Amino acid sequence: MRSCRITHILETHRNEDLVSGASALAERTGAVVLHGPNSAGEVVYARTAREGDVIELGDARLVVIETPGHTDDSLSFALYASGSDEDALGVFSGDALFVGDVGRTDFYPDRPREVAGNLFDSLRKLEALGDQAILYPAHGAGSVCGGAMADRDVSTIGHERVHNPRLRIADRDAFIEAKLAEHHDQPPYFRFMERLNLSGAPALRPPLQPPPLRQEDFAARAREAVVVDVRSASAFLGAHLRGSLSLPVGMIGGFAGWLLSFDDELLLVAEDGDQAATAARRLARMGFDRVHGYLAPSLTAWAAAGCAFGSLVVVGAETVHSRTRAAAAGWHLLDVRSPSEVEALRIETARNIYLGELPERLSSLDPTQSFTVMCGSGTRATIAASILLRAGFERVDLFLGSIGAWRSRGFATAGSA
Amino acid sequence: MRSCRITHILETHRNEDLVSGASALAERTGAVVLHGPNSAGEVVYARTAREGDVIELGDARLVVIETPGHTDDSLSFALYASGSDEDALGVFSGDALFVGDVGRTDFYPDRPREVAGNLFDSLRKLEALGDQAILYPAHGAGSVCGGAMADRDVSTIGHERVHNPRLRIADRDAFIEAKLAEHHDQPPYFRFMERLNLSGAPALRPPLQPPPLRQEDFAARAREAVVVDVRSASAFLGAHLRGSLSLPVGMIGGFAGWLLSFDDELLLVAEDGDQAATAARRLARMGFDRVHGYLAPSLTAWAAAGCAFGSLVVVGAETVHSRTRAAAAGWHLLDVRSPSEVEALRIETARNIYLGELPERLSSLDPTQSFTVMCGSGTRATIAASILLRAGFERVDLFLGSIGAWRSRGFATAGSA
Amino acid sequence: MRSCRITHILETHRNEDLVSGASALAERTGAVVLHGPNSAGEVVYARTAREGDVIELGDARLVVIETPGHTDDSLSFALYASGSDEDALGVFSGDALFVGDVGRTDFYPDRPREVAGNLFDSLRKLEALGDQAILYPAHGAGSVCGGAMADRDVSTIGHERVHNPRLRIADRDAFIEAKLAEHHDQPPYFRFMERLNLSGAPALRPPLQPPPLRQEDFAARAREAVVVDVRSASAFLGAHLRGSLSLPVGMIGGFAGWLLSFDDELLLVAEDGDQAATAARRLARMGFDRVHGYLAPSLTAWAAAGCAFGSLVVVGAETVHSRTRAAAAGWHLLDVRSPSEVEALRIETARNIYLGELPERLSSLDPTQSFTVMCGSGTRATIAASILLRAGFERVDLFLGSIGAWRSRGFATAGSA
Amino acid sequence: MRSCRITHILETHRNEDLVSGASALAERTGAVVLHGPNSAGEVVYARTAREGDVIELGDARLVVIETPGHTDDSLSFALYASGSDEDALGVFSGDALFVGDVGRTDFYPDRPREVAGNLFDSLRKLEALGDQAILYPAHGAGSVCGGAMADRDVSTIGHERVHNPRLRIADRDAFIEAKLAEHHDQPPYFRFMERLNLSGAPALRPPLQPPPLRQEDFAARAREAVVVDVRSASAFLGAHLRGSLSLPVGMIGGFAGWLLSFDDELLLVAEDGDQAATAARRLARMGFDRVHGYLAPSLTAWAAAGCAFGSLVVVGAETVHSRTRAAAAGWHLLDVRSPSEVEALRIETARNIYLGELPERLSSLDPTQSFTVMCGSGTRATIAASILLRAGFERVDLFLGSIGAWRSRGFATAGSA
Repeated sequence: MRSCRITHILETHRNEDLVSGASALAERTGAVVLHGPNSAGEVVYARTAREGDVIELGDARLVVIETPGHTDDSLSFALYASGSDEDALGVFSGDALFVGDVGRTDFYPDRPREVAGNLFDSLRKLEALGDQAILYPAHGAGSVCGGAMADRDVSTIGHERVHNPRLRIADRDAFIEAKLAEHHDQPPYFRFMERLNLSGAPALRPPLQPPPLRQEDFAARAREAVVVDVRSASAFLGAHLRGSLSLPVGMIGGFAGWLLSFDDELLLVAEDGDQAATAARRLARMGFDRVHGYLAPSLTAWAAAGCAFGSLVVVGAETVHSRTRAAAAGWHLLDVRSPSEVEALRIETARNIYLGELPERLSSLDPTQSFTVMCGSGTRATIAASILLRAGFERVDLFLGSIGAWRSRGFATAGSA
Repeated sequence: MRSCRITHILETHRNEDLVSGASALAERTGAVVLHGPNSAGEVVYARTAREGDVIELGDARLVVIETPGHTDDSLSFALYASGSDEDALGVFSGDALFVGDVGRTDFYPDRPREVAGNLFDSLRKLEALGDQAILYPAHGAGSVCGGAMADRDVSTIGHERVHNPRLRIADRDAFIEAKLAEHHDQPPYFRFMERLNLSGAPALRPPLQPPPLRQEDFAARAREAVVVDVRSASAFLGAHLRGSLSLPVGMIGGFAGWLLSFDDELLLVAEDGDQAATAARRLARMGFDRVHGYLAPSLTAWAAAGCAFGSLVVVGAETVHSRTRAAAAGWHLLDVRSPSEVEALRIETARNIYLGELPERLSSLDPTQSFTVMCGSGTRATIAASILLRAGFERVDLFLGSIGAWRSRGFATAGSA
Repeated sequence: MRSCRITHILETHRNEDLVSGASALAERTGAVVLHGPNSAGEVVYARTAREGDVIELGDARLVVIETPGHTDDSLSFALYASGSDEDALGVFSGDALFVGDVGRTDFYPDRPREVAGNLFDSLRKLEALGDQAILYPAHGAGSVCGGAMADRDVSTIGHERVHNPRLRIADRDAFIEAKLAEHHDQPPYFRFMERLNLSGAPALRPPLQPPPLRQEDFAARAREAVVVDVRSASAFLGAHLRGSLSLPVGMIGGFAGWLLSFDDELLLVAEDGDQAATAARRLARMGFDRVHGYLAPSLTAWAAAGCAFGSLVVVGAETVHSRTRAAAAGWHLLDVRSPSEVEALRIETARNIYLGELPERLSSLDPTQSFTVMCGSGTRATIAASILLRAGFERVDLFLGSIGAWRSRGFATAGSA
Repeated sequence: MRSCRITHILETHRNEDLVSGASALAERTGAVVLHGPNSAGEVVYARTAREGDVIELGDARLVVIETPGHTDDSLSFALYASGSDEDALGVFSGDALFVGDVGRTDFYPDRPREVAGNLFDSLRKLEALGDQAILYPAHGAGSVCGGAMADRDVSTIGHERVHNPRLRIADRDAFIEAKLAEHHDQPPYFRFMERLNLSGAPALRPPLQPPPLRQEDFAARAREAVVVDVRSASAFLGAHLRGSLSLPVGMIGGFAGWLLSFDDELLLVAEDGDQAATAARRLARMGFDRVHGYLAPSLTAWAAAGCAFGSLVVVGAETVHSRTRAAAAGWHLLDVRSPSEVEALRIETARNIYLGELPERLSSLDPTQSFTVMCGSGTRATIAASILLRAGFERVDLFLGSIGAWRSRGFATAGSA
């Protein structure tokens, strides 16, 4: 007999990258929300949990461990079988300790050493739980909340003690220096999320599926909206609406926060209603909830109705290699990967502007010149190319395969990798 | 209390366009299969039903009506409330009578007048059921089994009696003439289906989802297989595997029978596993069940691994208009719509080869010359362009928007429409 | 390309038996709600539709027909293919015309002749649509809104014209007399629904699944709540919580409105969480939305924890027959079927109180005497037995099989059937 | 990019309690099946895996550990991150090591000491993997393959090293003695499963939902079949088919193997089609696949049709207490729990026959006497009562709440608990 009522909602810390559903869930279940002590202001929908607080859960028990560092209010929760205060079964480590990495500590730019030191101390508490404790972190590989997470879901304190490069640093000062040397991006929407998650997001009404719009309705609304094309990069390259922003559905988590504003009215171009619904749901979780519909006809039907469309010229490694050798005036190879990727491996003559920062750095580019855009494979480059096109650049093409194809051809590269 | 056991499987006629699941379903349920009298040979898995046979179904009753014409073995089934032999509630009319059209009668080329006359007589039997009978035909709009079906699911004998152009022809000879003047395509797989459906298809094992294949596995198998790209036309235009056949998932029903052979080993390129599974299921229902997997990486990842890819240049109506005026030597505008579409509306200088017949008529085209391919919007043209590329044509581009965009620009057309 | 946006919400009339979701749906879709002209007061969330109003729906068209009778504001909607004003394809007939019956006309007790006459006139309008029109009524068999609906979903005006007993009455006065002679139950919740549906129900938040409750929690809350046992009648007979009301999930639609009050706090006993969720959803649609949870342990676990339980003695036809012959003092056979069922077939010595009216007529029974409860089979009798037990009756047993078993044994009956 | 193709099927050992789907899955995926070395005969569908064999799985690696004891062919699989041969991330321990217990060792009655010693040695290998290794055993709490498993899914070698009573026994002889002192039931179907799993079960065709049967069909077939009532115990107590076997759907795993024969033709009584389908699926996995349908009408409808039914008198703790004090001749309290439960806590005067062994020990009971059946709560007792009724016992009633209710009333008990 398992009595599954939601009685407690435990937050490991204030999130920067997602809307917390805690206040909405609490309202509907009557559950208590617990949150860590927060100097920046109270979390209005939560009680404050403190070191050693115990939450009894039938045959199990959770014990609160304060683990500041990533944020001041970070908590971890150690899991014990009931009747035993030793030998934790596991620990929910939030953003303090990941599989293969630890949390980033760059959210308090005025006191970076202090918070990195706090994290060092917090990690010692987690280590003290013993090798046998299973690790349940808040993120897996690919999150923006840590840099070097392993692509693996399972680990234990014992395994991390030996293999986690950051956890293995035994000296507090050396740890602090290592954290200060890290570089992490802070998309602009992080600040908005913090504010929202402090006051408690309103309960989102489960959104109706975005409605399909006929081309005349879509075209009329598009004048006041940002048209976001969530199809694959290939589909955008083949045919797209003039002026639309490419943002394949799998890239929403990584780049919507950089490229959209919270007051943008949004229209989608999608393969079908299912893909539109997936995209709308992901956008809503990040706070972008003004999606008014998606284009019902396919791109071919749109074109057959006489509406304007664009497509992008696609080039491969050989073509780009010839161009770099020719070094034609007025032609640029633009690499939109992150600085750390570029530092590791790059084409010598390419210019780097990180995709997330491209909108604000557009003015440094001359729209009358030619640009071939590249990234790791071609997906982020497609997004970047759509940004250039929206800004009126007319001579843009896309390097499909990008640095991967370049290297596999054996063309010359630079970098530390 | 509804006791829903499957006790009877009623076939209105031998299908040409799908694999019948009747023998497989009968094996698993113990149900009886009923089929019409068939001079061409017995349907081995079925009993022969005859005019007036009654099937009792709890509170309802079905009565067999022999309605030959579309095929010799065509049956209809009149539905009555139990206890009443008059005023049929409805009729399952198979391919004899549709909403807005009647069945095609071109499957017996040696006796076309006879079977058209048979259908005329069959329609009189259906009309005699009375205006109140609801019509449940075997196909809706878009089927290859009739030409002019209305885009509407519901009708009655009474409504068809007034509005159905074929049903309204009161004279038997006039009806026969009208049927003889019709033109219908017969994809080559029709003959195979007939044979298969005569002997009973083996019970298909529910197919496992086609497995994702890594690029090295995929590339190795691709040497012995036909690579079918079931993504949207736009995605194929943007980037595709060299040598692949474009066949967007929505076009499988219409063109797989023309373009694939039953002994082809197939590999898919799809947006994701769901799309691959949908495509594999549709292919299997038409008898193409040798799908070995789909390409797991996206096209950008494929390219980043250094694998070869292609993309197609896309042109619009203005460009095509300029080219037609320039009438450059060695350039051709190829329209792959059906003859009836072309007869109704066309660009004067375009050459027409129907998409379904393109593979066998390829030798009439010179692969060293330039081709711009068009259709109604661009989807079928993309399929056609992929066929040209597979055959080694190197100078192919795609007229997106095609005749629709051309007309909406006000450029000159010919034709009866 | 099907552009399925919800643009219109059409109400055939004010409902008495369900909460209308129209205002909530309109709020979320921006659709217009249309409702018939209503003398009793405006429907605040709707526009008033009038005879002949046209709603264009792409290739189809709906035309409003005012069909008062069942209620003053009753509307029907005739469906036409676009481009044709004749030969309606079908008609959405609301509660005016059903398959095999017509709407009840007893909601205006001060002017019964007038509204029955209105319905006669309305039916003539529907008949005039022609035999070919398919009938789409608002209810199927089993609804409380008509008495003699056929157990069949499909019909046409033509079929009803011949077979529907009420529609066949050609004389207006004869029709009125026939309607006045009908008897229909009006559960007390009907009036509440009317009020609610006039002002527009608030948008229901999609309810979370009712939470499972441990026995101690359940027992504590049960002191302030009505415990509703939604398991099958058999399960209630075998073991149940003392003081609980039997209301098998399939009987909620028919009897929740008679037996529960809108301000009751409710707790459920269910086989599992799925059954509890189904029950809670059905209750909410009728306006009973105060369900606080369900008992997580099974009845055996409940009993094993030492909690009190009850069970009912079950008797068969032979036993009841012996008792009726013995005619013991202080023993009563209580039949809870409706008066019309009892009129048709009954056991001579049984006393009839309709289940819906049992709570208010309990005072006419002596709780110190013995009662054997019966109905058509035993399900409603189980509900009735639970009501007696809740009221403190101690000598109650259940005639399983009831009148059905009695008749199949060949024991003597009375009645018109 | 996750390429999820099934390439290996790893069996930890021959199963006694379920039909292995390995050969069927292998046939459909082309995967290799690996199985441990088996002196009793080769597993025809598998390759033999040996200590130290490595299975590479992308970024991870599995290493085979031979861990005989539970069976001779038992294997465990240690999981490593690729690039590391130390510090296993986890171990799939089959039936060698569970959370809180170890595997039973009573399947080789001719050499009990040897196999218990083998298991001791195997456990040392698992312990040597290190505290940090996460434990993934083949069973959780409630399995018949071990006695004292914790009701918890997660653990590590480190946690078990401290808390698992069997793993903590450091002395080989002491471990052997402890294992020899255990008592485990061996349902008769275990032997059948072994044979089946040696040769490879035929690929089960996914069963169609068992068809609903009308009462006349059901009654006709019931003469040649075992009628299994899978509804809750309460529902069986309230009303059931005469001669049916109670086996609530949740008890199928525990008792179908004791109470059914593989050549029984089966009919089900269920609340609805969903419950019938769940029951049929569970039965099929244990090899009982001759389910011909379920009774479509409810028990009340069955009774209303005049068919015979039974119900059981239910008594509570007070009644049973009075009877034990009265010690009436010819009355027996029959406790059907397992010997170990009875040893721990019992009513002094109750007679114990384990439910699994009741069919073969029925002859020791006098069918003319009275029996009150009990267990832990009432569910197993209901099954036992149905066995007595099927055997012609006429004076049977059911102690609902059983030992749990008895103890909570404070009545006298005996036993070690």
